[in-house]
Amino acid sequence: MNTTILFPVLLSFIISVALCPIFIPFLRKLKFGQFVRDDGPQSHLKKQGTPTMGGILILLSVIITSLCFVKGRRDLLAVLFATVGFGVIGFLDDYIKVVKKRSMGLRAWQKILAQLVVTAVFAYYLESVLKTGTTTYLPFTDSYADLHGLYYPFLFFVMLGTVNGVNLTDGLDGLASSVTLLVAVFFTVVAFFVTDSGISPITCAVAGSLMGFLVYNVHPASVFMGDTGSLALGGFVAATAVVLRMPLFILIVGIIYFAETLSVMIQVSYFKMTKGKRFFKMAPLHHHFEMCGWSETKIVTVFSIVTALACLIALAAI
Amino acid sequence: MNTTILFPVLLSFIISVALCPIFIPFLRKLKFGQFVRDDGPQSHLKKQGTPTMGGILILLSVIITSLCFVKGRRDLLAVLFATVGFGVIGFLDDYIKVVKKRSMGLRAWQKILAQLVVTAVFAYYLESVLKTGTTTYLPFTDSYADLHGLYYPFLFFVMLGTVNGVNLTDGLDGLASSVTLLVAVFFTVVAFFVTDSGISPITCAVAGSLMGFLVYNVHPASVFMGDTGSLALGGFVAATAVVLRMPLFILIVGIIYFAETLSVMIQVSYFKMTKGKRFFKMAPLHHHFEMCGWSETKIVTVFSIVTALACLIALAAI
Repeated sequence: MNTTILFPVLLSFIISVALCPIFIPFLRKLKFGQFVRDDGPQSHLKKQGTPTMGGILILLSVIITSLCFVKGRRDLLAVLFATVGFGVIGFLDDYIKVVKKRSMGLRAWQKILAQLVVTAVFAYYLESVLKTGTTTYLPFTDSYADLHGLYYPFLFFVMLGTVNGVNLTDGLDGLASSVTLLVAVFFTVVAFFVTDSGISPITCAVAGSLMGFLVYNVHPASVFMGDTGSLALGGFVAATAVVLRMPLFILIVGIIYFAETLSVMIQVSYFKMTKGKRFFKMAPLHHHFEMCGWSETKIVTVFSIVTALACLIALAAI
Repeated sequence: MNTTILFPVLLSFIISVALCPIFIPFLRKLKFGQFVRDDGPQSHLKKQGTPTMGGILILLSVIITSLCFVKGRRDLLAVLFATVGFGVIGFLDDYIKVVKKRSMGLRAWQKILAQLVVTAVFAYYLESVLKTGTTTYLPFTDSYADLHGLYYPFLFFVMLGTVNGVNLTDGLDGLASSVTLLVAVFFTVVAFFVTDSGISPITCAVAGSLMGFLVYNVHPASVFMGDTGSLALGGFVAATAVVLRMPLFILIVGIIYFAETLSVMIQVSYFKMTKGKRFFKMAPLHHHFEMCGWSETKIVTVFSIVTALACLIALAAI
């Protein structure tokens, strides 16, 4: 009986599914409710008051599970650092929102600076301890490209871009958690079957944790992950891809993160260029589909199916 | 680039996702709407009129995809036969419901007789062509048990039990499709990575087909699979497990089918024993959770997560 995958998934799932019912009333009591943007879809106003910062639960179960298996796995430690590092930034952001009672948390420059610092430490660890080098696998080609000096700018771009993408994806009940669950499953398959990497316990932990969280986060959600969750998950996805030397695969398996980001960029540019016209009915992309009359559950299902298919394509591209 | 899994999944998905929008209005026009049991949850009465028999679409995409890859794969042919055979029984059942405008379709004895015939032909093919023998793999033990003369009664029990279980599971938007999608993924992993069986194109086809179907079947559903779908899927699950010589694994990966069946048996026996008391608020099991106040989407998510964990346990048990 091979339990390499089963045990971390189960452990993380149990922690997450057991902690949620204890933690959610606590979050509600502390008034850590979500402030819903008043320029968003009207139907979302009823989400006001749903407790946020559920990402703390995701982080907790991932940290505990990872630490159980971390011995001798330095690549796992790097991924865990990025996950927790970005999670802490998200936590500060959420916390300020709650304390200052405003929809925006950290200032943009504070957030970016903090992300740059976490990425720099991560990059330093990669360079000095893991010695992953400056090559990156090219999908569909069976070969690596050496980016030399461009590798580090590229790394910052990958980390901040991915984290931002996951953050934008987190706008419907269960959306970011379902999509990222599938991405974590993809990385588990790669780490376990394709490479000899030691990171599979943390990819399993994220998968298990998200399964537990989804029980409460699925529509109608009784908790949101908040920036704590979405930044942590973004850090996890980016760091895992980088440690496996396959950051370009984020464009495939993270197609939803990418599309959400792109939709905002298109919307903003188009609005400026045309002096007031909108390209999408609303950005990010999931709101556009809502405005088209799709139910929240349908959008989450379709985005998840697209991710699942993208993961299959990515598997074929290795 | 290894496309053994990707191609059948994509092909089946595309057929299914493309056919649905063409087929659903057609089903609605023909008044193939679902008659919702008036003794079920009140909230389900609004489902009246949603077109059923969407299983035809699942069957079509599975048949077309399987036939593209069937050459030289006789074990695949056996699974396809069982899938289509049970699907046809389901279709007759659905069709009579529509024509006779009553909630019940085929008489119980007709349904069981037809299922026995399909199973007998399937068993004959196994015995005479595939020569799979009378052994069955025992989970967690790394060994096979030879059932000798008991194998065939056992086979009938497995086939009819599983088909009935999937049929009972099909009572909430997207429930049977989500759960069976995960079971199909499990069998794909087993067929592809663990055994040297040739059936993976049909397990992929079922997975792809269900992904496409889920786009329309997810809550709020615009189509149901009907008995056409649930009997076909039941036939698929049972036949696949039998061909892989792991029918006992249905008890693990099909834990939801099993629990749904058990809940009905307990409910009926308890009702008779106590002369009118109910063990569950309502059977099958998913209605019990509805009566407990869980949303349809939450039940589907939780049952899917339970299935995913069960599949991991089953993988560890091989």
